[in-house]
Amino acid sequence: MSVTKYDIRRGAYYDSVLLMQLQRGLIGLPGVLDAGVVMATQANCELLAANQLLPNSIAPSPDDLLIVVKADDDLSAADAINQVDSLLAQKRSSVSQDFRPRSLRAAANQLPESNWVLVSVPGRYAAGVAREALSLGKHVFLYSDNVSLEDEIALKKTAREKGLFVMGPDCGTAIINGIGLGFANRVRRGPIGLVGASGTGLQAVTSHIHNLGGGISHAIGTGGRDLKSDVGAITAHQALDLLARDPQTKVIVLLSKPPSPDVATKLLGAAKAAGKPVIVDFIGYPPPARKLGNLHFAASLSETAELAVSQSSVISDQLSVRDTGSGYLRGLFSGGTLAYETLLGLQATLSPLYSNAPMTNNQLLKDPLRSECHTIIDLGDEFFMVGRLHPMIDNDLRIRRLKQEAADPAVGMILLDVVLGEGSHIDPAGELGPVIKEISNKKEVVVIVIGTADDPQNVQSQIERLNDAGAVVFRTVTATVEYISSRFGQDVKNEYPPVDLNRFSQPLAAINVGLESFYDSLLSQGAQVIHVDWRPPAGGNEKLASLLAKMKK
Amino acid sequence: MSVTKYDIRRGAYYDSVLLMQLQRGLIGLPGVLDAGVVMATQANCELLAANQLLPNSIAPSPDDLLIVVKADDDLSAADAINQVDSLLAQKRSSVSQDFRPRSLRAAANQLPESNWVLVSVPGRYAAGVAREALSLGKHVFLYSDNVSLEDEIALKKTAREKGLFVMGPDCGTAIINGIGLGFANRVRRGPIGLVGASGTGLQAVTSHIHNLGGGISHAIGTGGRDLKSDVGAITAHQALDLLARDPQTKVIVLLSKPPSPDVATKLLGAAKAAGKPVIVDFIGYPPPARKLGNLHFAASLSETAELAVSQSSVISDQLSVRDTGSGYLRGLFSGGTLAYETLLGLQATLSPLYSNAPMTNNQLLKDPLRSECHTIIDLGDEFFMVGRLHPMIDNDLRIRRLKQEAADPAVGMILLDVVLGEGSHIDPAGELGPVIKEISNKKEVVVIVIGTADDPQNVQSQIERLNDAGAVVFRTVTATVEYISSRFGQDVKNEYPPVDLNRFSQPLAAINVGLESFYDSLLSQGAQVIHVDWRPPAGGNEKLASLLAKMKK
Repeated sequence: MSVTKYDIRRGAYYDSVLLMQLQRGLIGLPGVLDAGVVMATQANCELLAANQLLPNSIAPSPDDLLIVVKADDDLSAADAINQVDSLLAQKRSSVSQDFRPRSLRAAANQLPESNWVLVSVPGRYAAGVAREALSLGKHVFLYSDNVSLEDEIALKKTAREKGLFVMGPDCGTAIINGIGLGFANRVRRGPIGLVGASGTGLQAVTSHIHNLGGGISHAIGTGGRDLKSDVGAITAHQALDLLARDPQTKVIVLLSKPPSPDVATKLLGAAKAAGKPVIVDFIGYPPPARKLGNLHFAASLSETAELAVSQSSVISDQLSVRDTGSGYLRGLFSGGTLAYETLLGLQATLSPLYSNAPMTNNQLLKDPLRSECHTIIDLGDEFFMVGRLHPMIDNDLRIRRLKQEAADPAVGMILLDVVLGEGSHIDPAGELGPVIKEISNKKEVVVIVIGTADDPQNVQSQIERLNDAGAVVFRTVTATVEYISSRFGQDVKNEYPPVDLNRFSQPLAAINVGLESFYDSLLSQGAQVIHVDWRPPAGGNEKLASLLAKMKK
Repeated sequence: MSVTKYDIRRGAYYDSVLLMQLQRGLIGLPGVLDAGVVMATQANCELLAANQLLPNSIAPSPDDLLIVVKADDDLSAADAINQVDSLLAQKRSSVSQDFRPRSLRAAANQLPESNWVLVSVPGRYAAGVAREALSLGKHVFLYSDNVSLEDEIALKKTAREKGLFVMGPDCGTAIINGIGLGFANRVRRGPIGLVGASGTGLQAVTSHIHNLGGGISHAIGTGGRDLKSDVGAITAHQALDLLARDPQTKVIVLLSKPPSPDVATKLLGAAKAAGKPVIVDFIGYPPPARKLGNLHFAASLSETAELAVSQSSVISDQLSVRDTGSGYLRGLFSGGTLAYETLLGLQATLSPLYSNAPMTNNQLLKDPLRSECHTIIDLGDEFFMVGRLHPMIDNDLRIRRLKQEAADPAVGMILLDVVLGEGSHIDPAGELGPVIKEISNKKEVVVIVIGTADDPQNVQSQIERLNDAGAVVFRTVTATVEYISSRFGQDVKNEYPPVDLNRFSQPLAAINVGLESFYDSLLSQGAQVIHVDWRPPAGGNEKLASLLAKMKK
């Protein structure tokens, strides 16, 4: 039979390294079978219970430190609990620094060239430290998690106004000027710059790039929530803008779990405007294509690395800037799947985009008979089909709609498909051509022709007559989408003060607040760093701290 | 000023070719500016209105034929309306057949070798015709749309029991034994077999394959709703099964808008079991990888064709069948993005699959502390992180969970990530290795190691020690997912009578019910075909028809 004893320390703050060390210390004592040392949150109590370490009938608050020891017998358990204080006292700091400033401001005075503050204190204190760092004009690497969304938005807006970064919260990884922050692999420097809303994603890609012989200019973390609508990718936009301006960066990688759709469209617009190849891996986001202009869509982290390395060795395709189209696109399809694939391809860069056969609910066109903004219509949809021949046989419906769209002054481009083959109209160009000819001096007309040289319609003659009528003709949806995307480039203007590239490119000098292991890591990488001997306000007493905060106002 | 006149024919049936011809005839008359001839559904009335062709204050029923003429003056309009009957009488059938049977049964007697019935009558009559075709033992190509979901399910279940296909409803395209049904491009025969829930998708891919020099064995349409949960991909499963058995087919293409997730998993399971390369394009479905065993995921219709052609020229990779794993997979991750990409990759083939950081709501693990079925846990999730070091620094949490999973008899494989680099634990193999060693004789242990040769941990030695402990080690998520997918092959057994391959491979002979142009098309392709002079029950009078139907029962 084993015996379990516990101790509760109410409302005291201990950092998590100390808790780990204490737990290990207790497990090492004679007669002790297991031990748990945790802040008594519900999750941690459940974890203790799962390890048969939760004493019955105790109800600690989440701010309490709970120390539990399971031992062979009563005496060993009691002995262990009695040694908690001496074990805590044994805790040695690994920081070799002579003088340890107690505040950020003091640290900043001590290391005036510091341009970064690393924050890894517990979540509830982290926003305050980050706010102070911004007020001192430093970039913030915010490792801490459990920071509220409101705090994140406020911090990032403040940072953006100052031309500073807040990377995080919950930012695990960054590599700035060759120095890894948080968790980061040692990789050579090189021409690939990364923006990542995912820590281990950045680690996997930067490692793989290194292993393939490539190198990294900067890897900029944003925190996992940055690409959600609420935050609006503030940090990712700043990072893209910086990497686009950075002459050391030849290829950009953009890495995230799937962003909110509106955020994705804006961010891809900014990526298109970057003037460099951008490898996009929105893990699990359906790629609009393999390639759209300078955007390359990867299907995995490893492929992201492979594409980045291969693109960084390409003598840059002259990234020509075309006149972009004005007005809206109207696609009038006879083929449902062609409409659907076009929608998939264009939704990444055209917004707002509507359809009577939408991919997502917010794309649903209210009235199939009236286009709005950019619209893709499937004229073969059941709605149109009662008692009527399919538009691949009978062009009447499409010709009428074509004229309707052409008469709309908001329209800049009209897109059609022409599907040849058995069963289809024997001469679509004969019927569509004259109408296209009428409108192609006012609107750009693009046609996708599907067919083979053996089809009864004579595909080559169809294409020639559509060309003669003034249409631009493509043979695949992919090529069409690429063309249209290049014509409807969204103008992305940065309205905020840019992050200062010169200052960003200075050797990294940092102030570390929180985990000492990050201090050690920076030192071992040859960076200048100063560790702050941080203590929570009012020693972790929440009530007192909130009283103090009120008095400051 | 123009004048508009109209005529309404109550509850009469006319086929849609006739309506188109009548409209064109009217527009060709002197003084006529425009004309509309439509079944008076709401959609069609709105279309007339959009063309200024809807007379005020009329309220036809959807079964009525509405004939509208807009002319220069009263006389021309009245003249045109008066000519409707003579124009209808002028309608010439293009069918050159001497004897035109009035029923399916008569047609089947006339052409006993017929193995297919093409149905393109209006939606409300189509299920009845298809049912009769099945009872005669024929495969059905069901072009008609506006067929109810209930009818589709009933028809397909009946067909499956008989080893017959119902391709459709709303099936635009198929190519069977070199003969195109419905809308189909003329393509050479060859080793690529297609299954498609999308008509123009099949056209685009088969055309592109032909244009690239490749060829088609069969292209089997399923109709757009086949891959929704309600139908459960009955036709697609039959088609995959047939193409897997067909010796002419070396490569299979599987084409659809995104299926329901449960349908996708089952279908991909069947595709894995096909023993041939399968190119998958679930347009807009996030691909789990570029390649999973014999499955290749394409990002576009054109890439689908390109992959199919390139795979058909590959001297087949020996598709080895491994012993598949038994029991469940439990993934215990320190890296959130690594967990996420693993989930993305495995959700295509593992089911049910749960996670505390799910991609879709139905994957949400109820209790992060208790795994269910296949489970991927992100141990770096905020839930676990209050007052606790990250699992990349402190292995305690993971080791405890590892032991918990190892003790679960339902578990067959345990997956871990080990992320090296700055900030991470200095010797994860030293702590995880001994635990892996304990359990790797009972459970398969797989580890993804992320890192570089320059990392402080010595990646090579970490890998060796994990190997020595009995773990299978990979360096990327992609390779890991590929391995796990091959180990957890779902057994896909076809419980239904297979479609008879010999009979399916006979020269196509068909009975056509509906659009005459499909008859012409089959004739011109050299197929045997007989056209049925079909009329709706009771001449299209719905009330009488329903009375007749009741009397039959």
